[in-house]
Amino acid sequence: MKKAAIIGGTGYGAIELIRLLQAHKEIEITKIISQSQAGEDLAATYPHLTGIVTTEMESLDTEVLEKEIDILFLATPAGVAKNIIPSFQGTSVQCIDLSGDFRLSPEEYSEWYGKEPADAAVLEKAVFGLSDIFTEEVKAASIISNPGCFPTAALSALVPLIDGDKIHTEGIRIDAKTGISGAGKGLSEKAHFSSANENVVPYKIGKHQHIPEIERYASRFTNEDVKVSFTTHLIPMTRGLLCTIYADMKQEETTASILEHLQHYYREKPFVRILPEGQFPATKGVTGSNYCDIGAYVDERTNSIVIAAAIDNLVKGAAGQAIHNANLMNGWEETMGLEFIPVFP
Amino acid sequence: MKKAAIIGGTGYGAIELIRLLQAHKEIEITKIISQSQAGEDLAATYPHLTGIVTTEMESLDTEVLEKEIDILFLATPAGVAKNIIPSFQGTSVQCIDLSGDFRLSPEEYSEWYGKEPADAAVLEKAVFGLSDIFTEEVKAASIISNPGCFPTAALSALVPLIDGDKIHTEGIRIDAKTGISGAGKGLSEKAHFSSANENVVPYKIGKHQHIPEIERYASRFTNEDVKVSFTTHLIPMTRGLLCTIYADMKQEETTASILEHLQHYYREKPFVRILPEGQFPATKGVTGSNYCDIGAYVDERTNSIVIAAAIDNLVKGAAGQAIHNANLMNGWEETMGLEFIPVFP
Amino acid sequence: MKKAAIIGGTGYGAIELIRLLQAHKEIEITKIISQSQAGEDLAATYPHLTGIVTTEMESLDTEVLEKEIDILFLATPAGVAKNIIPSFQGTSVQCIDLSGDFRLSPEEYSEWYGKEPADAAVLEKAVFGLSDIFTEEVKAASIISNPGCFPTAALSALVPLIDGDKIHTEGIRIDAKTGISGAGKGLSEKAHFSSANENVVPYKIGKHQHIPEIERYASRFTNEDVKVSFTTHLIPMTRGLLCTIYADMKQEETTASILEHLQHYYREKPFVRILPEGQFPATKGVTGSNYCDIGAYVDERTNSIVIAAAIDNLVKGAAGQAIHNANLMNGWEETMGLEFIPVFP
Amino acid sequence: MKKAAIIGGTGYGAIELIRLLQAHKEIEITKIISQSQAGEDLAATYPHLTGIVTTEMESLDTEVLEKEIDILFLATPAGVAKNIIPSFQGTSVQCIDLSGDFRLSPEEYSEWYGKEPADAAVLEKAVFGLSDIFTEEVKAASIISNPGCFPTAALSALVPLIDGDKIHTEGIRIDAKTGISGAGKGLSEKAHFSSANENVVPYKIGKHQHIPEIERYASRFTNEDVKVSFTTHLIPMTRGLLCTIYADMKQEETTASILEHLQHYYREKPFVRILPEGQFPATKGVTGSNYCDIGAYVDERTNSIVIAAAIDNLVKGAAGQAIHNANLMNGWEETMGLEFIPVFP
Repeated sequence: MKKAAIIGGTGYGAIELIRLLQAHKEIEITKIISQSQAGEDLAATYPHLTGIVTTEMESLDTEVLEKEIDILFLATPAGVAKNIIPSFQGTSVQCIDLSGDFRLSPEEYSEWYGKEPADAAVLEKAVFGLSDIFTEEVKAASIISNPGCFPTAALSALVPLIDGDKIHTEGIRIDAKTGISGAGKGLSEKAHFSSANENVVPYKIGKHQHIPEIERYASRFTNEDVKVSFTTHLIPMTRGLLCTIYADMKQEETTASILEHLQHYYREKPFVRILPEGQFPATKGVTGSNYCDIGAYVDERTNSIVIAAAIDNLVKGAAGQAIHNANLMNGWEETMGLEFIPVFP
Repeated sequence: MKKAAIIGGTGYGAIELIRLLQAHKEIEITKIISQSQAGEDLAATYPHLTGIVTTEMESLDTEVLEKEIDILFLATPAGVAKNIIPSFQGTSVQCIDLSGDFRLSPEEYSEWYGKEPADAAVLEKAVFGLSDIFTEEVKAASIISNPGCFPTAALSALVPLIDGDKIHTEGIRIDAKTGISGAGKGLSEKAHFSSANENVVPYKIGKHQHIPEIERYASRFTNEDVKVSFTTHLIPMTRGLLCTIYADMKQEETTASILEHLQHYYREKPFVRILPEGQFPATKGVTGSNYCDIGAYVDERTNSIVIAAAIDNLVKGAAGQAIHNANLMNGWEETMGLEFIPVFP
Repeated sequence: MKKAAIIGGTGYGAIELIRLLQAHKEIEITKIISQSQAGEDLAATYPHLTGIVTTEMESLDTEVLEKEIDILFLATPAGVAKNIIPSFQGTSVQCIDLSGDFRLSPEEYSEWYGKEPADAAVLEKAVFGLSDIFTEEVKAASIISNPGCFPTAALSALVPLIDGDKIHTEGIRIDAKTGISGAGKGLSEKAHFSSANENVVPYKIGKHQHIPEIERYASRFTNEDVKVSFTTHLIPMTRGLLCTIYADMKQEETTASILEHLQHYYREKPFVRILPEGQFPATKGVTGSNYCDIGAYVDERTNSIVIAAAIDNLVKGAAGQAIHNANLMNGWEETMGLEFIPVFP
Repeated sequence: MKKAAIIGGTGYGAIELIRLLQAHKEIEITKIISQSQAGEDLAATYPHLTGIVTTEMESLDTEVLEKEIDILFLATPAGVAKNIIPSFQGTSVQCIDLSGDFRLSPEEYSEWYGKEPADAAVLEKAVFGLSDIFTEEVKAASIISNPGCFPTAALSALVPLIDGDKIHTEGIRIDAKTGISGAGKGLSEKAHFSSANENVVPYKIGKHQHIPEIERYASRFTNEDVKVSFTTHLIPMTRGLLCTIYADMKQEETTASILEHLQHYYREKPFVRILPEGQFPATKGVTGSNYCDIGAYVDERTNSIVIAAAIDNLVKGAAGQAIHNANLMNGWEETMGLEFIPVFP
């Protein structure tokens, strides 16, 4: 059984890792690290963990971790992991970073995050852990840059179309809807129940740091430079994320032929489900699970395609995919510890 | 004081007309018509009206209405109003139809509604009651075809851009999000709380009957044939509708210049609010009111625009706009009976 | 037209006063006072007021208010109004305090609010503005202590039963459920959407400052000392409040006879609706309106009664009742400016 | 590995059994029985099961079940199980009935369910499967009558108090709040999103069939006849159930001493968590898990107690407890397949 530590113990990402790893046969959590709440009991912040998580949170000590830990999950805010992961170079500790610190080029990171980028040599080693697409690269990696929640859904839908030369890479529009947990645990006006409930509102239009992430990895599948228009919306629900994507078809195709292409593309991927014609993904269909559900419609009137992908932002969009990556890195069964059936209703 | 009748007394449209007309100084509701529940008390179906609406519902008698009524609001399902309105031709009764019966050409109606269209001569007289755009035509009309909820929001955002030759008419994508009340009062799996709550799901992709309605009226402002890709989503809230629209700019412009154009376009329209740069419309900002809030962002990276419009689907998207049209037809103050401040929080 | 000022301009109480007073024929708001945000535009905090409220907020200047204002609404946190209202003694300004500062005896206030009580002489002049019960006292008052939201619902149900000697005053249990807006605009963990949504949780059991308020005013209708057990719950909705009350019957009665008693008790009260046998109040049946809906059931198996009262916590439980009191104080029609039909759905 | 069949395959109870049993090491579902949808694919009704449950639903054939099945879960509407379970008498099939058919005496069943009761001889063999209370009886049972969701929460809170002679058995009031999934999958006005959202409403006051169930099993711990006043409320959330219970103390005690009593009472029960003083159970703290969280407060002002218990109505209140009972009946680890951490947020 491998020993894991979670850094960033009081955010939703860490809490979801704790929930999911409970069912994992090969990983046990032996340390929960929180700089701000070291010495405290996690159940004081999260009463639902009363009687379940009883170890005290600790402060970060890389030397101890190096000796005692096999897998390190970093569920920290932007700008933290880039200062921690380099300490583990040259050790056998596998690092899986759920933040954005290792997802972009140094230039992109500076521009979109407004922070100093990670050390270039370490950055180069990091593999973008979009598990269903970069499966082979992940298997060989020692540092995983776990994708953002929106890029996970958007790229899962877009990559097969770009890779299969089905759509024009210009004019791609991504309209994303996320539950409020996507905004994290911090208090804010927009996350106040009385503001968020019975409300839909776009935010960060044209400025979201997931834009360069989507473009960067989508561009790997074409010689063209993919540029997307990406707009996020807050939706009055806790979990779940849907990306509805619009693009122009390169040649005439039918909905059936596109679905067949998708089906084939993901034929060996247990967590991607291509829905039958006429059916579209609902976030509630994946809640609490590691599935990514995809549906598509070719609009012959406008020779364009509408493709939608739904995930649970905290599972497939964060903690679940991190575990999926850990499975791949360690040569375990891909689905180990992730066979949750969606919670419905 | 003019006497009004409402046909279709048990749907949400009628209930909202009753709520709003309570505050109207020139209109009183004297009859509520329901074929299916004639003789019953409306408060039996809608307990919130206990002690407020005490008149029994009646069955339809056009001869009586002709004599006793000045304004007829038809809040009926598709296919009903087209058989009723012709009876009032040659009378002084003003007809305002909230259904889709008079919005399309006969060919479009047959194709998208799958029903026999209205009599062509009567259809020709009907004016599309998008109050803030077709203001002058409405003033002169005797039959109003009140717009659909999605077209109201979509056209309010699109028309100024098309009319001002700001965007390409190809490649327009409309991503719409609506509260569940948009699906009406009928029982269905998708409107069941346990299905709809904590869920976002696209529906009727490429097949929504509001597509030809948007295209038809947008095309009036250009020589080109406007074709839109239009996708609707059910959102876990009761009221509210947001359209996020993506289009390519014809020439380089800034967010500021577009907002100025919009501001100017609607300078005399009391119910359209153009939000300042950096701010986007929230459905909660218009709940219970007749406002349409619009925000825009020009994405210079992709030379495209994102424009979003929020309305209350039952007010501006139905009953409120119907009253607005009644005000215009009768030469009353435009805002009469509609000066509701949004209900917040 | 009387001139009104609102102090505490950025809380939900003030925002609701602004919304409701828009429709009032005899009151106009001429000043909005906010110590913390003086000089700012209210629409910057509440975008839904864009284009509607355009006057800048001012800081408090009692001398100016005394000259320019007829009615003063205080929608301030506990501990503020008690320092402001005394300045207006000897003037003609009518003061309506929505906070708890003038609801209790000095001893009770010290104990439950943990603050210095208001000046005893001024406190004595304040009338508890439970409009449907203390109607005559309110008419003669110059200072109104507007009731808390829970006491409004609880007392509206309890007083007729105690006054009619129907129930034992011992063993009364009040189980209250409130929407999150009841917790106010401030940011807190419990009001965070991701915590509050899909959740019900009791809070402040046995310690709520509305306990002495309910007991104090219920005791006026009996020689006994009324003591209640009162438990509040946060419910995942924005507006609305329901009190379900349990008590032992003094003698055998039927549901019908109790409903008749209630009907009679409130026969001249336009805002209290007694529901027919078998029907129970839903908060959604009163949303946005000034109604208090009451239903009851006599459980002959246990010789006890279940009585439930539903209100909109921000209208009947705050701003609406404040306006009702202003109407009574000024001899206007009781329902003036409050004839809103509940917003449904 | 034991083979299980689920009868009533398309209700929420069955769906939750399927979700939970996925993680069970000793039970595999080999048959899903649905009379109304035999021959259909369950994923057609529940798209979230696409690719997960692929066996066709079958119609009921008791002879086949007898041969091929070890454990039979009946998640059927009232009135069905009583006709099925008798067929399995004399066989080794363990029957676990999630409906109300075997919970009451024949007289009570006739009165509260309005149906013919089960055969008296079979009824007598059925053990009420409140797992944490009747643990030993369950271990020896071959027929389990799985408790209703409300009785599970109510009795978990009440029994230790009655058994410990802490409270008077007269004057017990139970105020229950349930998510809409408690009303089942069927379509109804009260479960329509637009009615249920932003709403709290009591229902079935004094008439709920869980009343005799609570009284019957609470009475086993006292010589007195327990009579309760029980009121249920629909809350705008999908899952979760909270019972807030009010009772009079027999003698003076403190919150601390009661909590200690509860702690002791459940000291060996892994699924009951007694919360520390000052903390109250939130339904969100148990979502998706088999926990029952209990908090209590002794109100010394009124010498009464407020005790609240929260469960997930579909897990602890139905499918989870059914599996717990299967574990007990088969001598497996009590927590087998039920170690889910609550889904938060």
